[in-house]
Amino acid sequence: MCSAASLTSLHAEGTAWVALDFQPYFYSSELFTLTYGALVTQLCKDYENDEDVNKQLDKMGYNIGVRLIEDFLARSNVGRCHDFRETADVIAKVAFKMYLGITPSITNWSPAGDEFSLILENNPLVDFVELPDNHSSLIYSNLLCGVLRGALEMVQMAVEAKFVQDTLKGDGVTEIRMRFIRRIEDNLPAGEE
Amino acid sequence: MCSAASLTSLHAEGTAWVALDFQPYFYSSELFTLTYGALVTQLCKDYENDEDVNKQLDKMGYNIGVRLIEDFLARSNVGRCHDFRETADVIAKVAFKMYLGITPSITNWSPAGDEFSLILENNPLVDFVELPDNHSSLIYSNLLCGVLRGALEMVQMAVEAKFVQDTLKGDGVTEIRMRFIRRIEDNLPAGEE
Repeated sequence: MCSAASLTSLHAEGTAWVALDFQPYFYSSELFTLTYGALVTQLCKDYENDEDVNKQLDKMGYNIGVRLIEDFLARSNVGRCHDFRETADVIAKVAFKMYLGITPSITNWSPAGDEFSLILENNPLVDFVELPDNHSSLIYSNLLCGVLRGALEMVQMAVEAKFVQDTLKGDGVTEIRMRFIRRIEDNLPAGEE
Repeated sequence: MCSAASLTSLHAEGTAWVALDFQPYFYSSELFTLTYGALVTQLCKDYENDEDVNKQLDKMGYNIGVRLIEDFLARSNVGRCHDFRETADVIAKVAFKMYLGITPSITNWSPAGDEFSLILENNPLVDFVELPDNHSSLIYSNLLCGVLRGALEMVQMAVEAKFVQDTLKGDGVTEIRMRFIRRIEDNLPAGEE
């Protein structure tokens, strides 16, 4: 048999390293990917149309984001962002890396600096996935938009997040469009939607 | 702000290392944990009693295990196990480490060598979780038993897997009891249950 040391065969060149044997927080994403697929499949059984599934995924994601932000702030040592560009950097280079193992590129800034796109070359949530023909309106990874919205709301930023391209639908890349709505002045208590 | 390099602050002593910057397969488990929670919550809404939720989690896990085994074999370089003790080692030291970032201990072997227990000191699936009083029969992490059963069936081992202790229910540790039933002689095609 092969011991846990076989994991070292996954080595590649890089600059940031973590110790697997003493670091329980980094692992392979396939179990997550397949579990997410089970969640989406269940919602497709529960709701009559794709739009309702999309809404439910967004809502679930929101509730996750509201809770995840605390873990994120504790783990990342990220401080307050001074503008939306800094926020974009933190989302792409720290948050996506930490929770999905990927670093989207940041593109298509609006002239006013209140909109940008996250381009995901690879979306780990859609490994193994093909959308059936009867689910052409399904925004499969919509949970992510909810997570972004919920997490940012907890740091006083109201944003809109939505998929505008998706490799699952034949697009060359997956693109999440982020739009800054307003800074939330009152520190409202966290709540479920 | 803090860049992705802050992830290096998570360093600890260890022997197996992976490169974060070039290795998309290792990341933080909290998003998975919370997504799993959303799945269980949804099932609790969908089914009338905990027993049905437990069954559904096991079935979903089975379907995941049937698919996950291929990824596992490809990624781990693990060869054919010669006996159930070797299988136990691979499950605890390679599979759990790879997909959940933990290494359960293996205990309580039956005299015949056909049963053992996996002791999970920490179960990442139950971070943030408290069972409500009206779900005292819920086997929250039951997906894992299904995954083990489905994955092992694909390598010709029929097993029973079940939780016999659970920290969520006040036990000191979480214990999964594994029982070897039989070796499957025919190489049946993989199928959904």
